[in-house]
Amino acid sequence: MVFSHLRIEVKPGKPHPYHSDNVQGKLCVTQATLGQGSTEERTVLQCSVGHKSPVYLCSLLPGKNECCSLNLEFKDDELVAFSVIGDRSVHLCGYFKSDEGDNLR
Amino acid sequence: MVFSHLRIEVKPGKPHPYHSDNVQGKLCVTQATLGQGSTEERTVLQCSVGHKSPVYLCSLLPGKNECCSLNLEFKDDELVAFSVIGDRSVHLCGYFKSDEGDNLR
Amino acid sequence: MVFSHLRIEVKPGKPHPYHSDNVQGKLCVTQATLGQGSTEERTVLQCSVGHKSPVYLCSLLPGKNECCSLNLEFKDDELVAFSVIGDRSVHLCGYFKSDEGDNLR
Amino acid sequence: MVFSHLRIEVKPGKPHPYHSDNVQGKLCVTQATLGQGSTEERTVLQCSVGHKSPVYLCSLLPGKNECCSLNLEFKDDELVAFSVIGDRSVHLCGYFKSDEGDNLR
Amino acid sequence: MVFSHLRIEVKPGKPHPYHSDNVQGKLCVTQATLGQGSTEERTVLQCSVGHKSPVYLCSLLPGKNECCSLNLEFKDDELVAFSVIGDRSVHLCGYFKSDEGDNLR
Repeated sequence: MVFSHLRIEVKPGKPHPYHSDNVQGKLCVTQATLGQGSTEERTVLQCSVGHKSPVYLCSLLPGKNECCSLNLEFKDDELVAFSVIGDRSVHLCGYFKSDEGDNLR
Repeated sequence: MVFSHLRIEVKPGKPHPYHSDNVQGKLCVTQATLGQGSTEERTVLQCSVGHKSPVYLCSLLPGKNECCSLNLEFKDDELVAFSVIGDRSVHLCGYFKSDEGDNLR
Repeated sequence: MVFSHLRIEVKPGKPHPYHSDNVQGKLCVTQATLGQGSTEERTVLQCSVGHKSPVYLCSLLPGKNECCSLNLEFKDDELVAFSVIGDRSVHLCGYFKSDEGDNLR
Repeated sequence: MVFSHLRIEVKPGKPHPYHSDNVQGKLCVTQATLGQGSTEERTVLQCSVGHKSPVYLCSLLPGKNECCSLNLEFKDDELVAFSVIGDRSVHLCGYFKSDEGDNLR
Repeated sequence: MVFSHLRIEVKPGKPHPYHSDNVQGKLCVTQATLGQGSTEERTVLQCSVGHKSPVYLCSLLPGKNECCSLNLEFKDDELVAFSVIGDRSVHLCGYFKSDEGDNLR
């Protein structure tokens, strides 16, 4: 198994695509944290898969709930794009587990 | 194993059924997030399985706790229906893992 | 493996026992949500196993934190009883995994 | 595998040691809930392993956040002691999984 | 498998590196709790891997949300450094699982 980290900052107005570069495996997103900024409004993280309409993944509230655990899995052959609704960025952590070299398991 | 995503928006007044289309496997729901709207009242997500009375899955509070992790599993042969109590929708994320092609595991 | 769902509402003043009916396996409780009611006081979910004194499992606060994830496991041969301290019920979700047909695993 | 439950109440001023009685295995602590009391100050749960200085495990806030999930693992050969900073007790849930009878796995 | 605990306090102004000392395996960080101090401002825990810019892992709010579960994994061959933004320390719990002696699994 080849393991690589996902650590990205999804910025307002800029959908953040994720590609697995034709490597077979699974993307797991495990943590979301609100980035810097002064607005007190909520920031919603959403993702779209392929051409489907986006679905909310979490809603972060400045000064109240600024981070949350996630348990999200995406397949390698999906075109995933993360984006935010609101004026602050969201930091995402996770990992990509590819199947390479995993035949004996 | 065949893996497919669950990403649905459960809207007020509209129970959202889930069918696995006779594919054997397991439905996992891992995340719930409050949808848009202006009411400040709580929105409760509930589900009913078969003909049993619905049970609450989570309670989301605008401006306080707008998302939560879930760890729910449903069998393929169950008729599951999600619904909300309240005026806002709830976005659900998860996946369906079917057993097809999994005989060698 | 035989898999069955746990979805119960633990009501005030009424300890809710759980029996596995002599089926070997494991009870997992994964989610607790506050039921309806108007009191603003906390509701504490507790459980007792056998004849031991009860231990708190979670504390739910109306309008602040009305649900929480749990990661609780109980053995089949234990007499488990859930009860609440407070005036509102608590909805529990989880599952029972029996070992039947699992000999080859 | 032999499975036994951990359900303890860690009281103020009284470190609560945990021994596995020379049984090989792993202690898992999965849930912490604030006990009764009237103080509105935070209660911090900490643990020390061997002779190392204690580390905070969680911080519970009366009327705001009175419980939390934990994902803690301890080895059988460690001398673990839980204690609280504050005036209220903390209820802990979890389990001990011993390796006995697990040779064939 | 060799299992060792991670229990560190990341102090303000002092990045805390983590080395696996050339032992192959995986570092898991499962819990973060706010340390002592009087500031009411948020404390953000971040980490940098190699020479990449740091990413936020969680944001802790005094008197509101002082701890959170994490599900973070790092490879042995990565140079990981934890640091805080803010005036209070953050206590981290987790473990390191090395692959030594794990050949038969």
